[in-house]
Amino acid sequence: MKQYLKNHEWQIIEEGFDSHLNRVSESIFSLGNGHMGQRANFEETYTGDTHQGTYIAGVYYPDKTRVGWWKNGYPEYFAKVLNAPFWIGIQINIAGQELDLAKCKVENFRRVLDMKQGLLSRSFEATFADGKKVAVNAQRFCSMADGEVGAIKYSITALNFSSSSKITLAIDADVVNKDSNYDEKFWDRVYEEAQMGWAIVNAQTKKTFFQVCTGMEYRFESGGQKAGGKVFTNTKDKYADNLVEMELKQGVELTIYKYAAILSSENHPKEKIVKNCLAKIDATAKKGFQQLLNDHAAVWAHKWEECDITIDGDIAAQQGIRFNIFQLMQTYTGDDPRLNIGPKGFTGEKYGGSTYWDTEAYCLPFYLGTSDPSVARQLLIYRYKHLPKAIENAKKLGFKDGAAFYPFVTMNGEECHNEWEITFEEIHRTSAMAYAMRDYVEYTGDKNYFVDYGLEVLIGISRFWAQRVNWSADKNKYVILGVTGPNEYENNVNNNWYTNYLAAWTLRFTQEAIDYTKNADAAKYKALTEKLNFNEAKETAKWADIVSKMYYAEDKTRGIYLQQDGFLDKELINVADLPAEDRPLNQKWSWDRILRSCFIKQADVLQCIYLFEDDFTKEQIKKNFDFYEPMTVHESSLSPCVHVILASKLGYKEKAYEMYLRTSRLDLDDYNNDTEDGCHITSMAGTWMSIVKGFGGMRIRDGKLYFSPYIPEHWNSYSFRIEFRGRVLKVKVAKEKTEVILESGDHLSIVLNDKEVSL
Amino acid sequence: MKQYLKNHEWQIIEEGFDSHLNRVSESIFSLGNGHMGQRANFEETYTGDTHQGTYIAGVYYPDKTRVGWWKNGYPEYFAKVLNAPFWIGIQINIAGQELDLAKCKVENFRRVLDMKQGLLSRSFEATFADGKKVAVNAQRFCSMADGEVGAIKYSITALNFSSSSKITLAIDADVVNKDSNYDEKFWDRVYEEAQMGWAIVNAQTKKTFFQVCTGMEYRFESGGQKAGGKVFTNTKDKYADNLVEMELKQGVELTIYKYAAILSSENHPKEKIVKNCLAKIDATAKKGFQQLLNDHAAVWAHKWEECDITIDGDIAAQQGIRFNIFQLMQTYTGDDPRLNIGPKGFTGEKYGGSTYWDTEAYCLPFYLGTSDPSVARQLLIYRYKHLPKAIENAKKLGFKDGAAFYPFVTMNGEECHNEWEITFEEIHRTSAMAYAMRDYVEYTGDKNYFVDYGLEVLIGISRFWAQRVNWSADKNKYVILGVTGPNEYENNVNNNWYTNYLAAWTLRFTQEAIDYTKNADAAKYKALTEKLNFNEAKETAKWADIVSKMYYAEDKTRGIYLQQDGFLDKELINVADLPAEDRPLNQKWSWDRILRSCFIKQADVLQCIYLFEDDFTKEQIKKNFDFYEPMTVHESSLSPCVHVILASKLGYKEKAYEMYLRTSRLDLDDYNNDTEDGCHITSMAGTWMSIVKGFGGMRIRDGKLYFSPYIPEHWNSYSFRIEFRGRVLKVKVAKEKTEVILESGDHLSIVLNDKEVSL
Repeated sequence: MKQYLKNHEWQIIEEGFDSHLNRVSESIFSLGNGHMGQRANFEETYTGDTHQGTYIAGVYYPDKTRVGWWKNGYPEYFAKVLNAPFWIGIQINIAGQELDLAKCKVENFRRVLDMKQGLLSRSFEATFADGKKVAVNAQRFCSMADGEVGAIKYSITALNFSSSSKITLAIDADVVNKDSNYDEKFWDRVYEEAQMGWAIVNAQTKKTFFQVCTGMEYRFESGGQKAGGKVFTNTKDKYADNLVEMELKQGVELTIYKYAAILSSENHPKEKIVKNCLAKIDATAKKGFQQLLNDHAAVWAHKWEECDITIDGDIAAQQGIRFNIFQLMQTYTGDDPRLNIGPKGFTGEKYGGSTYWDTEAYCLPFYLGTSDPSVARQLLIYRYKHLPKAIENAKKLGFKDGAAFYPFVTMNGEECHNEWEITFEEIHRTSAMAYAMRDYVEYTGDKNYFVDYGLEVLIGISRFWAQRVNWSADKNKYVILGVTGPNEYENNVNNNWYTNYLAAWTLRFTQEAIDYTKNADAAKYKALTEKLNFNEAKETAKWADIVSKMYYAEDKTRGIYLQQDGFLDKELINVADLPAEDRPLNQKWSWDRILRSCFIKQADVLQCIYLFEDDFTKEQIKKNFDFYEPMTVHESSLSPCVHVILASKLGYKEKAYEMYLRTSRLDLDDYNNDTEDGCHITSMAGTWMSIVKGFGGMRIRDGKLYFSPYIPEHWNSYSFRIEFRGRVLKVKVAKEKTEVILESGDHLSIVLNDKEVSL
Repeated sequence: MKQYLKNHEWQIIEEGFDSHLNRVSESIFSLGNGHMGQRANFEETYTGDTHQGTYIAGVYYPDKTRVGWWKNGYPEYFAKVLNAPFWIGIQINIAGQELDLAKCKVENFRRVLDMKQGLLSRSFEATFADGKKVAVNAQRFCSMADGEVGAIKYSITALNFSSSSKITLAIDADVVNKDSNYDEKFWDRVYEEAQMGWAIVNAQTKKTFFQVCTGMEYRFESGGQKAGGKVFTNTKDKYADNLVEMELKQGVELTIYKYAAILSSENHPKEKIVKNCLAKIDATAKKGFQQLLNDHAAVWAHKWEECDITIDGDIAAQQGIRFNIFQLMQTYTGDDPRLNIGPKGFTGEKYGGSTYWDTEAYCLPFYLGTSDPSVARQLLIYRYKHLPKAIENAKKLGFKDGAAFYPFVTMNGEECHNEWEITFEEIHRTSAMAYAMRDYVEYTGDKNYFVDYGLEVLIGISRFWAQRVNWSADKNKYVILGVTGPNEYENNVNNNWYTNYLAAWTLRFTQEAIDYTKNADAAKYKALTEKLNFNEAKETAKWADIVSKMYYAEDKTRGIYLQQDGFLDKELINVADLPAEDRPLNQKWSWDRILRSCFIKQADVLQCIYLFEDDFTKEQIKKNFDFYEPMTVHESSLSPCVHVILASKLGYKEKAYEMYLRTSRLDLDDYNNDTEDGCHITSMAGTWMSIVKGFGGMRIRDGKLYFSPYIPEHWNSYSFRIEFRGRVLKVKVAKEKTEVILESGDHLSIVLNDKEVSL
């Protein structure tokens, strides 16, 4: 845990330069616009510890799988987020000395991420070995108004000297991926050109043949006037630059504007990509920094209007929730169904592939609640498009007849993870796609999604479950053997309660979707059954049989559901009784010890109760929460939010607040000492849920909104906005009262604290 | 499965050259002498598909661990058998053309491994592109009389031409390991020298700094006379040779004798290793090929006298058992307690480390039954010496107070395997060390081994078990959670019956050893308790409590023990009902599917019943065999022998014979299509056990030998010898009668077919 950032309502502020924190700050101060992103690396040369990262959505590399012991069924490659051409570089050389914060004396260093307008600023004074001192002020952003554009304003002032300087403005595609399996570079050269005033590099990924064409133009201003110098152009393999020689005059600010256009062959034909890039960079430079920034900030203003959450009386909590929302918004914008939400977004490359079940289980509710339904719908369509791959994936594992098994990690629908206990056994994820539809339909009322896309996916998933269960003659029930539940501190267990519950629910839900679809569009339904070779009578009869005879492990004495068969054979110990030096378990204990212990990484039984809350009485929820939560170590970033929501429901306000802090400032305070690898983007949606569903008590039941808000002790008030079936509601919770305001849309009746209220 | 070798009582014969079978033959025709070994690579250049392999016992390299996803507790490296300097090379160049069976036309190719004297012969005729034709006759061996010596006799005759030739005699340490994790080379140069008539290369392993100094001398004979030619010497990095220019005269046989001395710094001080090597190679060459061969063959003759098994009426079975014995004898000779028996011996480098529980569970009985007790004792001492590492290994996994957890794979006592489900969870192996002691004591009567070494090991292992069990409040029993049993087609299961049984037995056995030791040598016992800080009263009370309250899963209705909790939830299907195209499962099914199926890789419940046969009634054994064997796929080479033994006991003669064939010709017929990686050395001991304990029905009970032999239908008779407490017995089983002859040693009373017989 590190607490070095200043609290501020709208800003993340770092004061003073500590090179040991640099990688953490590089993650936290990252910028993105849904199409590309950039870690908070410095523009100028930095020879200290850094993790340089530029990422472009949808551009990946299938890195050859690395395992110790191959298991049949492993995928051949692991699709990785790709470190992409570095476009921010502005090297400053003054009288033969390179400006490099690792080598200069640094004073008054200040880095600010202004979340309101998505602007990163940095200022500092640096003194060279020979005593020359400069002041630097840098700003940059990735345009939310144009996903292919980035802009930098970099000002430098010679404080105690005048001297010649060399300023190099580069595009560099000769980059490496930190977690390349075999230390390979992933880019091939295609084209580079440097002319006075601009440079361009077109590079292509190996194997996947994505092209990314990156161009830059620049302008100089000195003392408010356009300025220039002697220009040298230079290209080499996957690299192009302009070197400009200029005089720095003491006390006169020199400002460099660097404009970049980053085009991907996903959006431009390869034969036109260079031309389009040149045109784009030209138009961008003509617009100029301020106009670009205005356009960008306007988009952010609109976004904040939709999704801001205010907290009065707790500035750290306010900063935390805004940081989470900010990161989510700059990671995914919902305008391209080929994209998804990587676990690190554009802030790092760990965990490779872009899509986990995090998207459906955690992120979807956030986008449903804060954005136009089309955004969440894109996420559903993304999985619909991957259905053929999910069927292929199931086939590889021995399933047949159109069974669909969604991958644990993917870029293009193919599985790319390679741990048998996860890849093959953490099978609950395939039903996350079904639950996402339920969420989507509840928020939006758009049941026609079943007809157009949903049912096809549901039938595939249900077919998977129908094959994956087996009949236990011993138990006279259907069982599900050899799985890993959401709690990944158990592997290869039998009858994980969550998995069994979810499987049976999926089969029932699919039946509902069949009934709806038949009714809504009989012709489409008929066409679908033919396309899928779906024998409704036979298949649904089997499903109904499974639903009615599914086995659920429970302990009736304690009134709890059992996480899996045999759970009660463990020594049941509370986390509170663990020695502090044993935590976190995943760094201190060997894997077998974790597995045979009772300790729970993240909500498992409680995850199920959270998802299907209305299936259980409050008493049941309480008993399970009281049994499982004390054994939960929350060593997954996805864990605390579920506990905030359930604890809130049970009136465990202190526990809820404790868990909220853990989720909301996870990265800002580097809670798990791993923010240097990137931020925990997908779990950030859990912070939003913690407030809205936890403290706000929001639920949707049969198309109706329910709220039962309360306010954490330390807060004066909080507010959030909700998109719901064409309306926008603003909910303001203060100590003394709750206001729900219908900001737009038709009349609506909601339930507030168990009372029907008409808006 | 491939059946291309000719049947012969004493020889393995390959006729005709098929390059596709070359790697398989290279494994099968391997030579070794307990100290070094050599795959059956060709002396001359071969550019076709080959796996060049020279191995030196005890010389290994800690290759950096490669995993996909690191688990806490994994070792940093995997110690690998090292491909060592190649000493057999004799390159033949005739009129500018290289003799290379991949490029010449090959006729009358014949390769013979004479197991009686441990001699590899090869003859062929090769025609070059220009029509020149030569005949070659090559013989070689690794001396059993001197573990540091190898010798080659290589004769070549020009059949239809006379021409100049260049013959290169090389030592090459610039070799690679096929399964290097990161494609690194493991040898550094130290010294190389080539002088007329000899060459020497001293090379050193990276990280481990073993030196291996390899020297060679050579002699030429032509038409029975000493011959010579123009000699060029040559050295380069890790390489030295002599190139000899000679005339080949049509019809006149040229014979090359190449003598090699291979010295390891494990046996020679580094400062003397070159000098010692030169002396050794000199003495060796002076002795000459025939004398060296005589000495070597004499050792083999003696070995065969001790351990031969004859089978009359089934030549394939006869060849099979001799091949198994031959490989075991040339892999391990028992004269160095630092050595052990690698799973591939000197025939390949797969599976890296040298020592698995195979040694104790399978190999030990073979050496006990066929060799002086000192040989088996060395194997026990080997583990005694590793006790501190076993304690360290346990500590790494969170155990304390001197608990000993023996590694799954090791070279020097440190664990080097890296699959959590094996490394951390296949814990039964640690008790294999205890069972080995029981075996040793039963065969030899040498209970003082407890006093000198054994008890210390047993206390360490028992301490491990006492910490590894946990109390299940639910079952009111001690349970063992999260293990992998011998059947590795189940991972991370609870209460594997074999493991629970073995753990409790170990605790009881340790108590017996304590009682014996206290009685035999009270002073030593006291010293030991002090050394180990052993609180006898407290610790043994805990052990007794565990023994009395251990949980054993069983199904009383079926009268079977359950392989693990929940086994009966599986769909119970017989292997016979599996589609043929699904076999072998480990190549056709994904890992999760194997895990949740009922199919058993190798004996598990039955392994326990085999080890503790007398604890069970015949009825119990029958019920368990009838239940488990039909679900067993025998996809481990260690599986069939246990089934031969139990099937024999139950009178299932056909099943026993079926399983016997599977074990005895596993490599000769390349049953699993993997002999190209090397032979299955450790499981070969199972073939010996199949005959002696299976067909021969040999048992030891309370220091007495029992036999209840029968004869497989296809055989006329068979015989084997047994070392037992200072006696040598010969057992001859024919259709009509069984003879047991006391060949040496004191009077002995045995039980033959339930009748007491005095010898």
